Amino acid sequence: MKNFRLTIEYDGSAFHGWQIQPDCPTIQDEIQKILSMMTKSDIIVSSSGRTDAGVHALAQVAHFTSDTTIAPEKFLIALNSMLPPGILIKECAYTDPDFHARFSARQKTYRYRILNRHLPVAIGRQYLWHIRQPLDLDAMERAAAHLLGSHDFKSFEGSGSPRAHTIREIYEARFERKKDDMIEFTITGNGFLKFMVRNIVGTLAEVGLGKIGSDEFKEILGSCNRDNAGPTAPPQGLFLMNVEY
Amino acid sequence: MKNFRLTIEYDGSAFHGWQIQPDCPTIQDEIQKILSMMTKSDIIVSSSGRTDAGVHALAQVAHFTSDTTIAPEKFLIALNSMLPPGILIKECAYTDPDFHARFSARQKTYRYRILNRHLPVAIGRQYLWHIRQPLDLDAMERAAAHLLGSHDFKSFEGSGSPRAHTIREIYEARFERKKDDMIEFTITGNGFLKFMVRNIVGTLAEVGLGKIGSDEFKEILGSCNRDNAGPTAPPQGLFLMNVEY
Repeated sequence: MKNFRLTIEYDGSAFHGWQIQPDCPTIQDEIQKILSMMTKSDIIVSSSGRTDAGVHALAQVAHFTSDTTIAPEKFLIALNSMLPPGILIKECAYTDPDFHARFSARQKTYRYRILNRHLPVAIGRQYLWHIRQPLDLDAMERAAAHLLGSHDFKSFEGSGSPRAHTIREIYEARFERKKDDMIEFTITGNGFLKFMVRNIVGTLAEVGLGKIGSDEFKEILGSCNRDNAGPTAPPQGLFLMNVEY
Repeated sequence: MKNFRLTIEYDGSAFHGWQIQPDCPTIQDEIQKILSMMTKSDIIVSSSGRTDAGVHALAQVAHFTSDTTIAPEKFLIALNSMLPPGILIKECAYTDPDFHARFSARQKTYRYRILNRHLPVAIGRQYLWHIRQPLDLDAMERAAAHLLGSHDFKSFEGSGSPRAHTIREIYEARFERKKDDMIEFTITGNGFLKFMVRNIVGTLAEVGLGKIGSDEFKEILGSCNRDNAGPTAPPQGLFLMNVEY
């Protein structure tokens, strides 16, 4: 059996997330259909993790195994010619037989984009969260600093995801002001729970709006209770930036 | 009668261009429907010019007249709450009774975005033209310099547009290399013929690919014959940036 590694960019707008589900276009399904057809076998493509409906990826990583004689370059060309335009295979290569896109992952980086001004946008609206009221970025930065290190992130976990435990380590969590009233939040960790980034961003936004204090944010994290945290930020501002192995 | 001036941003992806036509979503139609409903009268919204299906605008300007007592701020709020998300009204204000979005316009600026690298993108693909082969930007700049000044632009005119004559004056035509392999072409003139910017960009791309020389570009312009120019660049790379009065 050969093991193939894929690097995938996708625009989440048109898909119901990564994971295959009945009667909905998903990224996993679109890729599997083509690979299965090409290899005349049932191919399962496993990614580094699911992304929710509407969430984007600049470099999702996935793998699949097959005893096919088709070369990786052939898969790359065929996939890109047959996939819908919102999915792009950036790389396809043979990889170590032991490589597993999810279990071999050492860390992941996500980015969340917030447009913070009165007027929304029409162009690019599917790639950001528009918050009309001014955000106190200093307070958000102070709150985000509490995320660094190892913590039980139960307060920021969405329900219904399978996981052994809820402790994750965060290596970086920083805000950056960009041009045109854009704020970017970048977070790197050894793993993320379901909805974790969106729940963190939703709660940090409450900090930015003055509804939650920076120190209160630390208490919310420590409480291990989802009810204490803020709302889930909308999916379209979130990008999986890269996965490190 | 009051005269209202609108500044409009739109994502052309979801619309069949500006101008109203049967059974197709158009920007003009979406706006007129709401204004007509609000004023209980037939409102005609005139823009600075049509944009083709798929072409975007950051600041299209339009006007409409009405004897309504509804204030401009009310129109702004109501429009933005009822319009589809791809259309955003940025400003609505009373304007001079003589103001006409098309006939009062002094100059317009368009921008065209080209992604020039082997790999396309999934995210933001609806806002650029992907050209895989390397473009010779120096040659394109030399060719574009021939556009400056007053010329008969018949060579770059699409068929079927009403116009008194085909002479237009170009004040600026420049390329800029941006990050992530993006090339932006910005052109300002006192007016543009149908398909003119897209035909110019399509022909400049042929220059960049070495199929047409920079001096040959000048001859094509001088020939006043559409058959000599290159293909029409796709609509999704084009943005109406602003209109000056």
